[in-house]
Amino acid sequence: MVYVSRKEHFNAAHKLYNPAWSPEKNKEVFGPCANENWHGHNFDLIVTVKGTPDPDTGFVIDLKKLSTLMRLEVTDKLDHKNLNLDVPFMKDKLASCENLVIEIWKILAPNISTISKYGVLHSIRLFETPRNYVEYFGE
Amino acid sequence: MVYVSRKEHFNAAHKLYNPAWSPEKNKEVFGPCANENWHGHNFDLIVTVKGTPDPDTGFVIDLKKLSTLMRLEVTDKLDHKNLNLDVPFMKDKLASCENLVIEIWKILAPNISTISKYGVLHSIRLFETPRNYVEYFGE
Amino acid sequence: MVYVSRKEHFNAAHKLYNPAWSPEKNKEVFGPCANENWHGHNFDLIVTVKGTPDPDTGFVIDLKKLSTLMRLEVTDKLDHKNLNLDVPFMKDKLASCENLVIEIWKILAPNISTISKYGVLHSIRLFETPRNYVEYFGE
Amino acid sequence: MVYVSRKEHFNAAHKLYNPAWSPEKNKEVFGPCANENWHGHNFDLIVTVKGTPDPDTGFVIDLKKLSTLMRLEVTDKLDHKNLNLDVPFMKDKLASCENLVIEIWKILAPNISTISKYGVLHSIRLFETPRNYVEYFGE
Amino acid sequence: MVYVSRKEHFNAAHKLYNPAWSPEKNKEVFGPCANENWHGHNFDLIVTVKGTPDPDTGFVIDLKKLSTLMRLEVTDKLDHKNLNLDVPFMKDKLASCENLVIEIWKILAPNISTISKYGVLHSIRLFETPRNYVEYFGE
Amino acid sequence: MVYVSRKEHFNAAHKLYNPAWSPEKNKEVFGPCANENWHGHNFDLIVTVKGTPDPDTGFVIDLKKLSTLMRLEVTDKLDHKNLNLDVPFMKDKLASCENLVIEIWKILAPNISTISKYGVLHSIRLFETPRNYVEYFGE
Repeated sequence: MVYVSRKEHFNAAHKLYNPAWSPEKNKEVFGPCANENWHGHNFDLIVTVKGTPDPDTGFVIDLKKLSTLMRLEVTDKLDHKNLNLDVPFMKDKLASCENLVIEIWKILAPNISTISKYGVLHSIRLFETPRNYVEYFGE
Repeated sequence: MVYVSRKEHFNAAHKLYNPAWSPEKNKEVFGPCANENWHGHNFDLIVTVKGTPDPDTGFVIDLKKLSTLMRLEVTDKLDHKNLNLDVPFMKDKLASCENLVIEIWKILAPNISTISKYGVLHSIRLFETPRNYVEYFGE
Repeated sequence: MVYVSRKEHFNAAHKLYNPAWSPEKNKEVFGPCANENWHGHNFDLIVTVKGTPDPDTGFVIDLKKLSTLMRLEVTDKLDHKNLNLDVPFMKDKLASCENLVIEIWKILAPNISTISKYGVLHSIRLFETPRNYVEYFGE
Repeated sequence: MVYVSRKEHFNAAHKLYNPAWSPEKNKEVFGPCANENWHGHNFDLIVTVKGTPDPDTGFVIDLKKLSTLMRLEVTDKLDHKNLNLDVPFMKDKLASCENLVIEIWKILAPNISTISKYGVLHSIRLFETPRNYVEYFGE
Repeated sequence: MVYVSRKEHFNAAHKLYNPAWSPEKNKEVFGPCANENWHGHNFDLIVTVKGTPDPDTGFVIDLKKLSTLMRLEVTDKLDHKNLNLDVPFMKDKLASCENLVIEIWKILAPNISTISKYGVLHSIRLFETPRNYVEYFGE
Repeated sequence: MVYVSRKEHFNAAHKLYNPAWSPEKNKEVFGPCANENWHGHNFDLIVTVKGTPDPDTGFVIDLKKLSTLMRLEVTDKLDHKNLNLDVPFMKDKLASCENLVIEIWKILAPNISTISKYGVLHSIRLFETPRNYVEYFGE
């Protein structure tokens, strides 16, 4: 079992905002992250796939195919976008990194088998800044 | 003459948008950077001051004072903000990195002498992403 | 279950030194790390908390509160200090990274519940240099 | 149980090539990675050892000894080499990162006990680029 | 005058080898860099253009156009290639970084004006490793 | 004229302290940097040499020789040392980065010609942290 990882990035705007709360409550809980006019980040997304290497290629998964899958299904839909307004799979969800990695898992997990018969999705790691990041293992 | 540099950061939203143009022209020229719902970045700001070291301290400038100046006068006004909407010194200016470093120079240049009698401002460098950055030397 | 991480840093002096041994034995075992006049590092500390996101905030833990906790309880006590001489919780312990992460775990584990009802401490990772680091999971 | 890691690096040429296939099939499967005249990378190798710290030294393993072991047994045999042509332990194997970490595990696992009685090998992580990496835990 | 920079990367094999010398002399002068079976690197290329910002766009140069130019004219011709064998513009030249930046300057300098009427080429910086890099300013 | 750079590192303890002042005055001016029991950093040192490439080697300077020179003359004398107590060339000088780069220049400038007939020393850059650095050009 080898774990293989690929990093992609996207630049997006968001705010942390619970629509069930007043603006004051949002300000109190989320601080400057609730700025009504948004703020943004350079996000780094790391997807890890695990499996045994294909004896013909030495690959658990072709990282070029994984890169293409990540771009088509995930980062093209997030890059230069507003995570609260422009992203169908985040609709009606708080635009936190925790919620993002869970939704990205749901998108990618069933797709890995279409590009590799040896690998399964292991984890989704998302850096919001070089100092803040989250990781999800599917449960 | 020694050159002394300090790095601070801020996370902000912006879009590239010329209000004299139609939305279509903006889209054509700025591409995804013109996304009407904004996008954002983790910006890194590096300020360089040059001078001869103070013989009593070995310092061209006290980097703790430079850090405080950069935060109070610049990054606190940009962090978790929208560069097009929330920043007085960028009002009526295109929110490009080129314009940002010129405005940051104007703010910081006259202030360096208030915290160091040995140093003068040398340059403002701004990273929008790890792959894109601009630098300005005051003229 | 989502894993959420925050990085803080501190700059400290230390030496590796077993007081039960002669200076020669210390030199022999620890080499230049035993230099009697100390040496030092820029340490990076990464704390990971795991849990299910709070449905109201989308947060496992508020990273601003985690950052404040890490500073107040840990890095403020280590930054610009001597790990052998100035740090109460390292008294009578060898100032190795292994011992540091164990003591940092003891300090932070009971405090996480005071700032999050959804998260528990998962790991403490400490970089002594970009090439050397240790990690502890509490047992 | 503390996990201790050391990073070393090496610069090497390789190509991805299955000698059982035609050049066309290799080109089709491996794309530019099959370039017959090779390409190369700055590889970063991270070895993690786990164990309880030695009470006399505070060490799970002496990182200077681990560094020397990694250099003598692994990176000196890979640095400024061609992974397909110059490396005895990769002979007759596809020069993929997956296969490399498995072979490096086989070399290092039995050697850790010669330099530490407290630690055992936990993982081998290999960065081919800052965006692509693999990890192996021995099974 | 603002200086604007863009970073791209390529992964390539090369060796340092003077064909006018014997293999022994090459080995003596270039050491492991002369390994006859090649070695390789992940190169980072930073191109800096200087000029006054276009008042309509706030740009000295459109970094997306600069990125495309760098890829089409330079990195696509170097990525996953052998610098000694596969690159027409390095034919009959020693494949040192010094020679590479001079040739890259010759290619890019006349092309900058085709994508920007405000900017001129200022410098070519090339990282062979995170520890070794060269820079050229056109004279 | 090509500019060639090499990065080395060293880990050292120091404090900022003017012996002509009282402990209180030192504390007031230097803050936590004056901690009497020292603190420390992982320093990165970048030396840049400029010149025209040797036509026989394509080198302005052999970076392996520059690396060896930097280690023997500079970083071996600073690594795992106390900059205030252990370093002959910093004796009776404030252990600031500004003073360090000036002394390192004095040591290296006359030595470059012993390892390269094509290059002369251009600059000494010293990172005290990833956020604070100084640079010196010899005058």
